[in-house]
Amino acid sequence: MATGMLLVCGLALFLTIKSNLLHSQQFTISFQRPSDCSVEQFYDISSQSCVKCGPNQSTSATGLSCECVTGFRVLATNGASITCQQCPLEKTVLTEDGYGCILCPGSLTEQGTCQCPSGSILVERDVQGNPLEEARCEVCNGAEPALSAPNSYGDRCQRCQASLINTSQSCMCGSNILVSPPSIILIVTLFGMFPLVANDACGLYNTIFRATAALGSTQDISYWRANLPWLYYGDQPGLANRVLQTEPLPTGFSFKGRNRNTDINLVAAVYNARGDFLQWEKVGGNNLQLCPDTARRQEAAYTFGTAYQETCVLSVADLLRVYAEPLFYDVFVDLSRGEDRRLLPLPTRNLNQEYNRKFINQGNLNDWYLSRRVLLVDTLSGREKSLGSLPKVIRIASSVRIGFQLVPGTQKGQVFPPLLSMTYSDVLITAPNTQTVSVSFAVDYEMDQAEAHMKTDIALGVLGGVSVLYSLVKTASWKRRIGSPLIDMETVLKFLLFYAGDLANVFFFITVGTGLYWLIFYKAQHFVSVLLPLPGLQEERFVAYVGCAFALKTVQFLHKLIQQLSVDIFFIDWERPRGKANKTIQGNGNGEAKHSPSPVSIWRTYFVANEWNEIQTIRKISPTFQIMAVLFLLEVVGFSSLALRDPWSDLQRPPQSYSPPYSLTLRYGLAATLWLCIGLLQIIFFTAFHERFVEDKIRQFVDLCSISNISVLLLSHRCFGYYIHGRSVHGHADTNMEEMNINLKREAESLCGQRGLLPNTDTQTFQISITSRLRLQYDRILEPLSRRNGPSRLVDAASGHPFDQSTKAYHTMNRFLGSVIDHAHRDMEYVVRDKLFFERVIGMEFLEPMDKSIFYNDESHSFSDVLFYGNEATLLIFDTLFFCVVDLGAQSFILAGVLTYVQQMIFRLIRNGIGQRNLANKTLVDKRFLI
Amino acid sequence: MATGMLLVCGLALFLTIKSNLLHSQQFTISFQRPSDCSVEQFYDISSQSCVKCGPNQSTSATGLSCECVTGFRVLATNGASITCQQCPLEKTVLTEDGYGCILCPGSLTEQGTCQCPSGSILVERDVQGNPLEEARCEVCNGAEPALSAPNSYGDRCQRCQASLINTSQSCMCGSNILVSPPSIILIVTLFGMFPLVANDACGLYNTIFRATAALGSTQDISYWRANLPWLYYGDQPGLANRVLQTEPLPTGFSFKGRNRNTDINLVAAVYNARGDFLQWEKVGGNNLQLCPDTARRQEAAYTFGTAYQETCVLSVADLLRVYAEPLFYDVFVDLSRGEDRRLLPLPTRNLNQEYNRKFINQGNLNDWYLSRRVLLVDTLSGREKSLGSLPKVIRIASSVRIGFQLVPGTQKGQVFPPLLSMTYSDVLITAPNTQTVSVSFAVDYEMDQAEAHMKTDIALGVLGGVSVLYSLVKTASWKRRIGSPLIDMETVLKFLLFYAGDLANVFFFITVGTGLYWLIFYKAQHFVSVLLPLPGLQEERFVAYVGCAFALKTVQFLHKLIQQLSVDIFFIDWERPRGKANKTIQGNGNGEAKHSPSPVSIWRTYFVANEWNEIQTIRKISPTFQIMAVLFLLEVVGFSSLALRDPWSDLQRPPQSYSPPYSLTLRYGLAATLWLCIGLLQIIFFTAFHERFVEDKIRQFVDLCSISNISVLLLSHRCFGYYIHGRSVHGHADTNMEEMNINLKREAESLCGQRGLLPNTDTQTFQISITSRLRLQYDRILEPLSRRNGPSRLVDAASGHPFDQSTKAYHTMNRFLGSVIDHAHRDMEYVVRDKLFFERVIGMEFLEPMDKSIFYNDESHSFSDVLFYGNEATLLIFDTLFFCVVDLGAQSFILAGVLTYVQQMIFRLIRNGIGQRNLANKTLVDKRFLI
Repeated sequence: MATGMLLVCGLALFLTIKSNLLHSQQFTISFQRPSDCSVEQFYDISSQSCVKCGPNQSTSATGLSCECVTGFRVLATNGASITCQQCPLEKTVLTEDGYGCILCPGSLTEQGTCQCPSGSILVERDVQGNPLEEARCEVCNGAEPALSAPNSYGDRCQRCQASLINTSQSCMCGSNILVSPPSIILIVTLFGMFPLVANDACGLYNTIFRATAALGSTQDISYWRANLPWLYYGDQPGLANRVLQTEPLPTGFSFKGRNRNTDINLVAAVYNARGDFLQWEKVGGNNLQLCPDTARRQEAAYTFGTAYQETCVLSVADLLRVYAEPLFYDVFVDLSRGEDRRLLPLPTRNLNQEYNRKFINQGNLNDWYLSRRVLLVDTLSGREKSLGSLPKVIRIASSVRIGFQLVPGTQKGQVFPPLLSMTYSDVLITAPNTQTVSVSFAVDYEMDQAEAHMKTDIALGVLGGVSVLYSLVKTASWKRRIGSPLIDMETVLKFLLFYAGDLANVFFFITVGTGLYWLIFYKAQHFVSVLLPLPGLQEERFVAYVGCAFALKTVQFLHKLIQQLSVDIFFIDWERPRGKANKTIQGNGNGEAKHSPSPVSIWRTYFVANEWNEIQTIRKISPTFQIMAVLFLLEVVGFSSLALRDPWSDLQRPPQSYSPPYSLTLRYGLAATLWLCIGLLQIIFFTAFHERFVEDKIRQFVDLCSISNISVLLLSHRCFGYYIHGRSVHGHADTNMEEMNINLKREAESLCGQRGLLPNTDTQTFQISITSRLRLQYDRILEPLSRRNGPSRLVDAASGHPFDQSTKAYHTMNRFLGSVIDHAHRDMEYVVRDKLFFERVIGMEFLEPMDKSIFYNDESHSFSDVLFYGNEATLLIFDTLFFCVVDLGAQSFILAGVLTYVQQMIFRLIRNGIGQRNLANKTLVDKRFLI
Repeated sequence: MATGMLLVCGLALFLTIKSNLLHSQQFTISFQRPSDCSVEQFYDISSQSCVKCGPNQSTSATGLSCECVTGFRVLATNGASITCQQCPLEKTVLTEDGYGCILCPGSLTEQGTCQCPSGSILVERDVQGNPLEEARCEVCNGAEPALSAPNSYGDRCQRCQASLINTSQSCMCGSNILVSPPSIILIVTLFGMFPLVANDACGLYNTIFRATAALGSTQDISYWRANLPWLYYGDQPGLANRVLQTEPLPTGFSFKGRNRNTDINLVAAVYNARGDFLQWEKVGGNNLQLCPDTARRQEAAYTFGTAYQETCVLSVADLLRVYAEPLFYDVFVDLSRGEDRRLLPLPTRNLNQEYNRKFINQGNLNDWYLSRRVLLVDTLSGREKSLGSLPKVIRIASSVRIGFQLVPGTQKGQVFPPLLSMTYSDVLITAPNTQTVSVSFAVDYEMDQAEAHMKTDIALGVLGGVSVLYSLVKTASWKRRIGSPLIDMETVLKFLLFYAGDLANVFFFITVGTGLYWLIFYKAQHFVSVLLPLPGLQEERFVAYVGCAFALKTVQFLHKLIQQLSVDIFFIDWERPRGKANKTIQGNGNGEAKHSPSPVSIWRTYFVANEWNEIQTIRKISPTFQIMAVLFLLEVVGFSSLALRDPWSDLQRPPQSYSPPYSLTLRYGLAATLWLCIGLLQIIFFTAFHERFVEDKIRQFVDLCSISNISVLLLSHRCFGYYIHGRSVHGHADTNMEEMNINLKREAESLCGQRGLLPNTDTQTFQISITSRLRLQYDRILEPLSRRNGPSRLVDAASGHPFDQSTKAYHTMNRFLGSVIDHAHRDMEYVVRDKLFFERVIGMEFLEPMDKSIFYNDESHSFSDVLFYGNEATLLIFDTLFFCVVDLGAQSFILAGVLTYVQQMIFRLIRNGIGQRNLANKTLVDKRFLI
């Protein structure tokens, strides 16, 4: 029973395995290649497997068929299979075609056929094709008039080579086989301008060149000898300079319009390694470009103005396969116009060229030794012994660069003859299947930037000088405003700080101007008159200027920030108590009721302080919208395409098209311009629409002061500041809703007085120059508080309630400032006047407040100068520079946008946080109400 | 004098012109091509110009040299130039080599050499190479054993072709030349599986296939006949299905780890048009890919899991040049492991294949007729008359697609045999230099998504059901809160609105889950077990779900927004007048002084209202930082690379590498996950750090209420709302700075009572369920105001001051609500209790406020539910969906970020603007104080 079970199981298992095996092999075959077949097998291509050869057969050289072994002839063929038969004893030698047997007059070859001596032919059949019994060896008659020699198969006498006959008048080798030009072309073309093996070939070429001087030159070019190809320009010093920078191409390039011409027409005469002329080829596609790419992208290299750069790594195995035979190119610029077909030879600079053991073409332009014929890949010269062997070394044009130079000052898009620069590399072949080689192809466009640099320098010098003057005025104004006549270190430092800001503006406007200049002139020009500065050296100075602008602007921004964070501010409450209140001081513990004046509520002051705290960091624009809008335009709408180094101004490029590298100059110009434009549009929108019809925070604050019966005194400098007059026209503001509503209504209906400081005026905001006396008094009142904030805190903790001091100081200050404004202080008088136009322009007061303080009418709310709001220009430029500097460093607008956002956030937090603390300290309003 | 001047000028002008001419032509040459030379000229390659041939010469066929005219022999050569001499009268005919003259036995050719009849050879020299006086025509002996025929030059008898001898045992043509297999291969390979000319070739193949059944099959594959290539799979119905979906490849693919295997090894046997086997080639590089690209990018096609798609437009001229000879490929998967070398034939689906006049391979899988051999470009078959002519039509594989299908449920990365799909296009050649043809190559990976779809459907069904229940509970809660027991249309509408929100969440979490599932499982899997859904059909459903989620979430968001914009709010001022003030009502015009209670200042209410206005749109996160952080991670750090359809998880890809298309599913999963993660991190940061150590706006508001002696009553529903108890513990808050500071200090030192509503508690915030009676009274007090806002405005203008009504209503309401809170109203009592845990969870109160209102302690500030702050989840999900939907539509994270910012800005403006108006209307605080 158990055995039966086991048997059934075993059988089932076997069947399963078998069906699986059958199943899994249903469609797989064994992988055999011709090289896998043994010596007795041939590779049967119909079954893709190795099949054994028949008897007396061995595998042929290709491995795809069999052939009879030595001494056997082919009897019959049937496709790939043959039948062999041994040759009879009387005729033991195989015929050349392998189908017959024959007798031999002489020795045998390795293949077992007859061999004849050199100069003889083997004859196996008669003239009618009948096989002979015995083969014959016949000597070819090499003398006149036969002049015959064996053909390459050695089976027929035919006329020998013309060059032999020319030199020796027979089929014998002459003494000098190198006289005839075709051979010269052969040798020189074969070895090109290779320094590797050049000593012979080039020396030979030069010898012949000199020797054939009498033949004259070809095509009116003195370096082009008749019957010789043109390989070199002369070696006179300065010739390269004359060739490259004397005569422009006759037709100019133009980017737009009816005469649009951006096609670079290059043609090349192509020769093979034997010097045979093959054809004229239009340069394009991939004949100079070794890197594979789509035709569309490759064509972009020949569009004038498109900086083209392509680098790739090629497999040596592919190179050996594709470039089995080297091709040589004589490259020309095609100047043809209609019927007038002309060519300009492209001067070639071989960077590997050695001359007197110096790489002469890597040095000074005047020493260059220009040449002509180029090649891309040579896998032939490095082959040793036989042409079938793997080369020991291959030579490849690892860098091909076509450089255009604009004629200085041209308005017609004229360029000098382009220069083709070649760098060859030798690759030692060790493992062709894994070896790779890096190659590059570039087309670039250059113009002399000296003039642009000079103009920039002039602008920089002039504006820098002006800004020194402006900074001096600012310093003088500052000296007056702090009420100090001395010139000390601080003054010098201040001057430097002001100068930093002004110089930053100079750098900024010069760089933006330059960027915009390139953007507009390069992209919009019809006839080419400017070309972009090249990356690297030509852009270095520009980047340095941007860096200067940013560094100086940062200094200015931090200076302003610190100034704003230490401004003096006080809220003057005009409200007077209305009557008596029943006040129970619970803190005393006893229920005793004291009668004292009903206290004036502090809540209006809290309200005003709270609002002031909130407007500290508002700006004329929305900074986040700014970033979003710029990113949207650059990255979504596609403005960033404008910064590409090509002449097109399309915003959206098809993804298949060639994308040239970015120009830093254009990126900067574009980003800064967009940022400034959107900033200006925002400012216009906010000032002309939003603040007028929706909400004006600054105006609201001034109104709030007036409604809440509170004035604001701001001292940005020791003796200079701002005053917002907020005395309520209703006398009282500390009242209930009913009265507030009535007051508001009365004012709306103009039933009450005007809000101005002077009777019957509306001017509530003033710039003030105060006397030193007033300032001293102000400081004296605040003295106990500043001591509290100083290092003497420990002492204070013992000396009782700091609140007491603080409230005492508050009330004293409130009374004092109120009386000053009310002209109640005889020795602290002030006058109200308008500022002169010129005073406004240069931002400096001419009158010194000696006896009386001076209140200047200021309708334009210039107290916002101590807020972010009044410094929009500085902030906007700082943001612009920050954005651009990050982008120049990282080439990413998105990163720049994100970091700008973070920067804005950090500075806003700093300004708000420290500003709030300053506000609490100066106005004595508890921080808890500044929310 | 004048003439002299003229002369000098003319001379100067002439010299200028001349030097210019000389100058400008210094290095230009005239552009002449071989085709430009006239019949008497040859193209001299050393001077690259046309040169006239000597006397009695004409241009050779190549145009690069001259040859003697008929009847003239070459006397001497010197490079390209020759000298010709007329043949003497006795020997007028030229020899074949052109160097001699001879007599002819018969007629002459067009070139003026001797012509022999067919089957004869021309003999001009004897066997030693000596020229004969008279040429001879010799007949080749075609019979056994000579079997000779003239060679291709017609100058020698040699053994004739083996296939002729095989069929006729002589050099005569036989009757059936098509029996031998090589010829078959020739014909079938030549015409491939072309329907164009297939009728003959394929019919012939099939005839031979059937006729040679007796020969048996090769390699154990029944469709592969011995001595015939394998071209077709069988035509049994369902065979394609069995071939493609039965047996997986033996080795699985794995993306990571020690057994990493992502290489797709394809090899191809390559044949030329004559059916000759050329070589085995590794498929890769550009043998199936017609589009040029770098090797690195092209190799990406053979990395398992990388969706590869390349399309380009090729020039027909290039195709004609590069693919002069068609190549045929038998493609196999190389399954070799070490010594065990095996191949699996790649089944090929020819989409153009016709069978019974139907495109059979475009229909049902069971009807497919799979084949084998493919070609890419055939420029040969279309040539008419001669092989040198331009083809009339070329055939090109315009679409090549390799498709992999994952074995369902595999954990080992097993796939079925890949399918090679070919689409051929015929291009009629009209203008090859301008014609183009579009070709594409794709590799894609598919898995059966039915299971994933089923799982999604189940999740959707279950969660959808649960959400119905949840929405029902919400509706019930809402009914209770509005104090209405009726089920009317409004109830149904509300249910639908709640359901929209819940269903949106279901869709959202299912889609995010799905996206994350693909992201994690696809990118992180070691052995391949899942493949991405294909774009198009397989992703359609997913996109629809995302759309549903977004639409429903928008409905929910708008519903919440409208609810928030119509909330009822009132500020209860607890402050009582302190004493008498001297109040002069100036409006009356007379100076009469009335004695009335010193008014309670409204400024505290303004302050609180102003703060409430400001916290309306604050959120738990910074929405702009959210956008910036997501953009930074996606676009700068490079997380977006994770959404590419390949198995790699590198963030930064080198720009030269192949960039596969994006997967919508992965993009959504990635963006939503990042958005949610950053949102959660922000929430954690703000709640755990910022609100605790820096600033908590909500807590500040509650504190402010307490300090300012003002309570806030919020009614979000008719009978439900929130109460913030703000009664000052000091009795009075409307006081001066001194007292405020003392109060704050006392509280900080815990010297006074606690702030809670109940004695000795701290709880200031409550959820309240109020009785209908209370609500009726509330509405009654507000009635005059709501009438004012109604259409009866014209009447009001006449009926006196609307301010009066408003302040009267304000005071009435203040008194009424104060007395209710103080338990002074007998019939409007309330109790304070804790909410049950379950009540909190389902968000519904179990007790109905019948006689007494109920105040639920609420430490968690849930009054923020009527602000943006309390609805962060909804806002975050809405923003996430908005971002993702824009991105799915436009495939641009930047655009999505910008639009999300704009969306947030718009809704914030709406919420702020209308919320401010609502606040002003409900609290009677003038809008001018809400700044």
